[in-house]
Amino acid sequence: MVEADGRVDKLALIGVGLIGSSIARAAKRGGLAGHIAGVTRSARSRDVCRELGIVDSAHLDPRRAVRDADLVIFCSHLSSYEPLARKIAPTLKPGAIVSDVGSVKACVAEYIGSHLPEGVHLVPGHPVSGTENSGPAAGFAELFDNRWCILTPGPEADPAAVEKVSAFWRAIGSRVEIMEPHHHDLVLAVTSHLPHLIAYNIVGTAADLESVTKGEVIKYSAGGFRDFTRIAASDPEFWRDVFLINREAVLEMLGRFTEDLIALQRLIRWGDGEQLYDQFRRNRDIRRRIIAAGQETAAPDFGRRAQAAARAGQAAPAQGKRRRPAR
Amino acid sequence: MVEADGRVDKLALIGVGLIGSSIARAAKRGGLAGHIAGVTRSARSRDVCRELGIVDSAHLDPRRAVRDADLVIFCSHLSSYEPLARKIAPTLKPGAIVSDVGSVKACVAEYIGSHLPEGVHLVPGHPVSGTENSGPAAGFAELFDNRWCILTPGPEADPAAVEKVSAFWRAIGSRVEIMEPHHHDLVLAVTSHLPHLIAYNIVGTAADLESVTKGEVIKYSAGGFRDFTRIAASDPEFWRDVFLINREAVLEMLGRFTEDLIALQRLIRWGDGEQLYDQFRRNRDIRRRIIAAGQETAAPDFGRRAQAAARAGQAAPAQGKRRRPAR
Repeated sequence: MVEADGRVDKLALIGVGLIGSSIARAAKRGGLAGHIAGVTRSARSRDVCRELGIVDSAHLDPRRAVRDADLVIFCSHLSSYEPLARKIAPTLKPGAIVSDVGSVKACVAEYIGSHLPEGVHLVPGHPVSGTENSGPAAGFAELFDNRWCILTPGPEADPAAVEKVSAFWRAIGSRVEIMEPHHHDLVLAVTSHLPHLIAYNIVGTAADLESVTKGEVIKYSAGGFRDFTRIAASDPEFWRDVFLINREAVLEMLGRFTEDLIALQRLIRWGDGEQLYDQFRRNRDIRRRIIAAGQETAAPDFGRRAQAAARAGQAAPAQGKRRRPAR
Repeated sequence: MVEADGRVDKLALIGVGLIGSSIARAAKRGGLAGHIAGVTRSARSRDVCRELGIVDSAHLDPRRAVRDADLVIFCSHLSSYEPLARKIAPTLKPGAIVSDVGSVKACVAEYIGSHLPEGVHLVPGHPVSGTENSGPAAGFAELFDNRWCILTPGPEADPAAVEKVSAFWRAIGSRVEIMEPHHHDLVLAVTSHLPHLIAYNIVGTAADLESVTKGEVIKYSAGGFRDFTRIAASDPEFWRDVFLINREAVLEMLGRFTEDLIALQRLIRWGDGEQLYDQFRRNRDIRRRIIAAGQETAAPDFGRRAQAAARAGQAAPAQGKRRRPAR
């Protein structure tokens, strides 16, 4: 069962990439789960999970992982939810709680909820944290510390199940917020989906230039471009699903963004320095509030080399990392 | 005089904000200048310069600072170049070298060069580094370490003067590249100016939403939005000048960006997952090359708290900084 303090007898994670493996590590750090079962299609990922001791059992067949599980969390791509939910539904034990970590929430009731048997509770969730790295080796226990996890239970959800899932996320370091699923999808369209789309786009535009070489783009990326490439390096499959599934909200935000950009473009073309200055100026306030809210530090960023040093000793992300000595 | 190894008898910095004060600190770190004179309009900035020992003499009148100077570097906003150049020109000593750190380069020959007396050498420059912070207290000696400084001497420039300015930048930690000024402005339009404009724009779009509150945008900024706010917090006056002066190149890049974005929007609207996936996928290569080029680290970014800790003990940026203990 899931205890009031978030402890779980058996936890099943369907998908052990960045998020799934970080949940496993955080749960182990807190001694929160009697047994953690992980599901992954890739034999290589199962090996990594075993080698690094991320889970207690690694499975190819999700039915074996969810058997007797008290809490089942979908940590796979959104497009995999429906076939997986169909597959595991008959095996879920009565009273089990099913959750997920997907970046779009209104779809979960249909993709997962509609397939669950009577007596199994659905509490969709979304931890608003992540890095640009993928795969089980990229996860780390601190990923959720001080970050928000948004839960989006439907009107028919069991309040006790919602409270248990909340307790679990708090126990692995998160702050928890309850939100209506459609509103979640609108909020995340602007704070996450639109930024990712813009980042993908600007990196693509730069890659296509004939007058400026790729080598130059890379060499002089410290001028600002670099900041965009981080999120543009995120898992392409994951983001394809997000944009297609949260299409309406993304198109709405994209429309506003383009409208505003065209207006800025016009100010530049007509040389309206006063308006440009006013528009740029008001953004500082938003930055300050993000720092005050503890979602960022105010330390200047000049290549982020300090980070690598500070994280020395933790599991390296899949593609390796560079460290430079502190000066 | 300026020595072949970059050492300078008297260095004058016109403007001691983030870049000017970082040059002063880096020059002091390397013992490169006999005397450093700094110019700033603000009495408060002159006090900060004196308190922190950033310069050897702080001046309101640029003519007093450049008297007998061997190397004069404009570190002020682009819109101040022309009036300042007119003012100091009669005071410059024969054989002096004049440079700058502006983000747009084709304009420097006109703004500064056209006012210089015979026998004074112009070697425009642009260190491609910076942070979102402004003012003399925000500078630090390591800002240029391992970053590129692009010099854009005109065809008539004195090769010896170009070599001396190169040596100076290498001595304060930079790698130096020589580039044609118009090409510089095109390269930077994509690696720096366009990213800043996009960042300003997305922050503005988010701030204007009625359906999503500002509080929500801030709370959930770790989903990607946060990465944009860093560069959108940059000096608005500085960026207004850049966009107006490098207008042609910025409008050209903006046109390409918008074109590409509309194409992506169409893929989303028509649900073309295959094309979306392909477009997202190719961006990872660019990110990897930036990391391989030493312009970024591969360490995952989850709030950048490690940075603040690693920089403890260095001069704090003007608005202060938050530190959280390493976990």
